[in-house]
Parts: sequence; C-alpha cells; structure tokens
Amino acid sequence: MMRTFARGNAAINVLARSGDLSVEVIDVGVDADLSSIVELRHAKIRHGSRNMLVEPAMTHEEYAGALAVGSDAVQRAASDGVQAIGLGEMGIGNTTSAAAVLSALTGLPSEQTVGRGTGIDDAGLLRKRDVVDRAVATHRDRIVSGQSRVSAAESLRCVGGLELVAIAGAVLEAARRNIAVVADGFISTVAVLAAARIAAQVPDSYDADNLVRALFFAHRGSELGHDAALAACADIRGIDAQPILALGLRLGEGSGAALAMPLLRSAAAIMREMATFAEAGVSTASLPE
Amino acid sequence: MMRTFARGNAAINVLARSGDLSVEVIDVGVDADLSSIVELRHAKIRHGSRNMLVEPAMTHEEYAGALAVGSDAVQRAASDGVQAIGLGEMGIGNTTSAAAVLSALTGLPSEQTVGRGTGIDDAGLLRKRDVVDRAVATHRDRIVSGQSRVSAAESLRCVGGLELVAIAGAVLEAARRNIAVVADGFISTVAVLAAARIAAQVPDSYDADNLVRALFFAHRGSELGHDAALAACADIRGIDAQPILALGLRLGEGSGAALAMPLLRSAAAIMREMATFAEAGVSTASLPE
Repeated sequence: MMRTFARGNAAINVLARSGDLSVEVIDVGVDADLSSIVELRHAKIRHGSRNMLVEPAMTHEEYAGALAVGSDAVQRAASDGVQAIGLGEMGIGNTTSAAAVLSALTGLPSEQTVGRGTGIDDAGLLRKRDVVDRAVATHRDRIVSGQSRVSAAESLRCVGGLELVAIAGAVLEAARRNIAVVADGFISTVAVLAAARIAAQVPDSYDADNLVRALFFAHRGSELGHDAALAACADIRGIDAQPILALGLRLGEGSGAALAMPLLRSAAAIMREMATFAEAGVSTASLPE
Repeated sequence: MMRTFARGNAAINVLARSGDLSVEVIDVGVDADLSSIVELRHAKIRHGSRNMLVEPAMTHEEYAGALAVGSDAVQRAASDGVQAIGLGEMGIGNTTSAAAVLSALTGLPSEQTVGRGTGIDDAGLLRKRDVVDRAVATHRDRIVSGQSRVSAAESLRCVGGLELVAIAGAVLEAARRNIAVVADGFISTVAVLAAARIAAQVPDSYDADNLVRALFFAHRGSELGHDAALAACADIRGIDAQPILALGLRLGEGSGAALAMPLLRSAAAIMREMATFAEAGVSTASLPE
C-alpha cells in the first residue's frame, strides 16, 4: 500500500490530483523497511507501536518524537505557504488504537467506540472490544490522575498509535500557526479530540481558543465510533463538529478531507470575491433578518 | 443582478472560478431590456411569463421556444466537449411557479410545495399558497387528461416559468447526449422532475432510461418544497435522488450544483485512475463482501 501511495495510484493521490492538493505521505511507524521508497518522507519512530496490552504503546521519548513528526510536517507546509491541511492516515489495526483512545478520553464503553474497521466478522469484533477494554484498564492508573482527571497526553501515549500522535502533533502546530485543519474520518477525528483536550490541559504550551477556530470536520464516516468521536469534539466549547460531507466513506487515507477541501476553498472564495447585495443593487427589503 | 453575473461577482461566478467550471448565463425571460449586457446569452422568449391566473404561463409556441433555449445550450456545451452540466436559475417569483408545477405534477397541496423563497412573511406565504392553488385549479382541464393522467408538458406550460422550461429542455437534451446533469436546488429539481415525466410520457421522442442514468442531485436545500420534489424524483424508477450535499444552501443561481461538481469530478477520477486492491497488493481476505 505504501508503494501504491508512492506510485500515485491510491485514492488519496487521485483525489489530490482532482482537487489540486499536495500529498505528503510520512512513515512514522510502519512495521517494514520502506527506506527504498524515495517518494515517502521517512520519520519512522519505531517498527509499529508497542503492545498496549503489556506496556504503554510508546515510551515518553517515542511519544514526543511522534508528536514532533506531525509538528514538523506542518512547519514544512507553513513555510510553503499552505493555509489548510487535511489529516489522514493508513495503518494496520489503527481503528483499534483509535477506539482505545476514544474510550480512554470519554469513558465510553468499547461497544460504543469499536467498530468493524475494514470489515472484521462478529467474533473479530468481540476480540477487538476485549482488547480495547483490557488496554484501557491496563493503563488506567497512568491515564486517570488522582482527581479523576483523564490525561489526554497519557491516553494517546499508552493506548494510541504512532500515527495518532503524529496527527495530534500536526493539529497542535497548525492551531499555533492559524492554519485550518480538516479532520478526515474516525481516526483523525479521535486525534483531533485528543489534541483539543491536550491544548485545554496544557494552557501554558497551547492556545485552546486558537485550536477550536482552526478545526473543520470533513465527513461523517461509516465506522461505528466516528459519531461518538464527533460528539465528544462537539462537547468542547467552540467546536462546531458538524461534518461537511456525509457520503458513507470508509476508506481512510485522508480521502474525505481531500473531498472536503474544494468546498473550503469555495467558501473562502465566496467570502473574498462575492458581491454583497448592496454592491449588486439587490433590494434586501424582503429578505429574512 | 444580471449585471453582477456579467461582471463575474455573483456567487455562481465565484464558485465556478473556484471549481474550474464554465458559466453561461442565458436570458430566457427577464422582464427588462438586457440587450446591452454583452456577457449574457440573449434568448429572451418574452418579458416575463404570462399571468398564470388568467391564461397559460406560455403559449405553445413560447413553451417550445423556451424548451429549445435549454436544448440549444446543451448542444453548444456538447460541441465544446462538456461531459457534465449543472442547472441553476435566477428569477423573480420563480419558487411560486416551481411550487405550482410541483403541485400540478404530484397532486400535493400547496402547504407541501410552497415555501418562503427569499424570505416572505406569514401573510405573504398565505398569498403565495393561494396563488398556487388557484393557478393549478385554473388550468386543471388542460393539465389532467380524461384518464386523470397529469400531462407534464402541460403542467410546465400552464403554471411554469420560462426558465423552468428551459432547464427541462436542457435535461432532455443532455440525456439524449449522455451528458451528466446536476440539478441544483428546489427550482431545478422541479424542472428535472418535469423532464423525467415528459420523457416517460413521450417515449417516441425521448429515452427515459437514458435520462434517469444522467441525473445527479447537488444538494438538499432549505426551501420547503425541495424535499417533496426530491421524493417525487425518487419515485421514478431508476432515479437515485439522494442529494450529494446538505449544506443548508438557499441561494439558487446553480451554486449548489457548482459546489457538487468537484465531487463528481473526483468520483470520475477514482473510477479512472485508482489502483484496485489487487494492483496495490492488498489482501482482500478480511474485507466485507
């Protein structure tokens, strides 16, 4: 699949060409040696996240490194003059870690956060929910502090994945630079939720108000936990978590964000270029307030 | 407003530039002399449709002429290699005639077809519904034949407007040429409904199967009758009247069609350019059927 990205034949490549967008594919933790693929950006922290059933998915150093991968990507984009970024991912088993982070952040049971991902059967679904429940339970003492406050950073580090953390890092950096962020599907919405919680919990480092202003949500996807993730985002003051599209997508790769981007571009053009009714000489006497 | 179109400052101009689309603004019946505006296409049939409370909105000749205006526009587009067209309109009082056509075609009472348009008050809404009821009643003998079959063509001619007929003519011509048609809001959806009914009622002249394959619906708008118009379209076998967008638009001008067009273009690109799972070397063993 990474070679397909590199060849430009994956859905995200096609949609980016169609929508006049640039794509950067970053290897932050694929469990394979991809160094021969020159079209990728190589920032591998580790061959796959650690087994969250036996230890935190990342050490503190690995977590900080993954956060910086996302942050660095946004810094590169900013220096190219980019004003809006879409955030997507591709990973094996990463709806499981996203569901675990969502359960950790919201307290929702795995029945409400774990879906079928690329299409597991009923037995697989039960196993996946069991993994999420056990992972969250394993790290409860790290995630929940004495005042029963859930640490968003520790949730990401203990039961997240390297790509989730990189996306959260990108969100935090984009907010700092007033770059619009378009979340894609379930996984990136969970990463956005974690980033928004981190910004609120670490006010010395981040501006939570700036972050909520930067956020857009591309689409309402099919994965079970997506609505719960959107609802948790909407619970944060200032976030309008109404997705722009509802096309029943379930592909990932940032494909929904790529489809929403031309609509954002059009909205910006309207604000910049459209004549007001006064300029157009249209009477507004009969228009609604 | 027509000058604003000509200057390129209206919403549809901005959205077209943003989405790399061409716009053609055709005067088919504006009640003003626009001949000095060289950027418009001049095809005026009449200064405004006739008063449908006292006579059919168009004579048979005017109806045929308006139908040909739409047909000619699609022929020009086809000769330029256009593969998809969006259909919008701008007109004074034309949600009233669209509601009248919808009531005539479906038998729905005016309470379900007449909305507030650009924002009339409660008294205005009652007057508008009364006009629709009286107009449909006035022409019932022309619209409904002996076998209580509703003639779509006579509905359009007696209680429609020149722009509705031109749009219907464009739909019929596009279907004949296998050009995709994107309906915009309430008014163009009613015109599409009328065209689909005409195609079914005049099988010697039109291919109804071709027509249903050509149709896309851009968005679910705010005007009251829009859902009823979409539902009536969905009742026609083969039409998937699920709108692509639901953004609460209420502007007209084809703005919703312009916003949906990049999504159609992206969908076409995916079908043309995206690697299959087999080509990408992705195992499909665990994918849903």
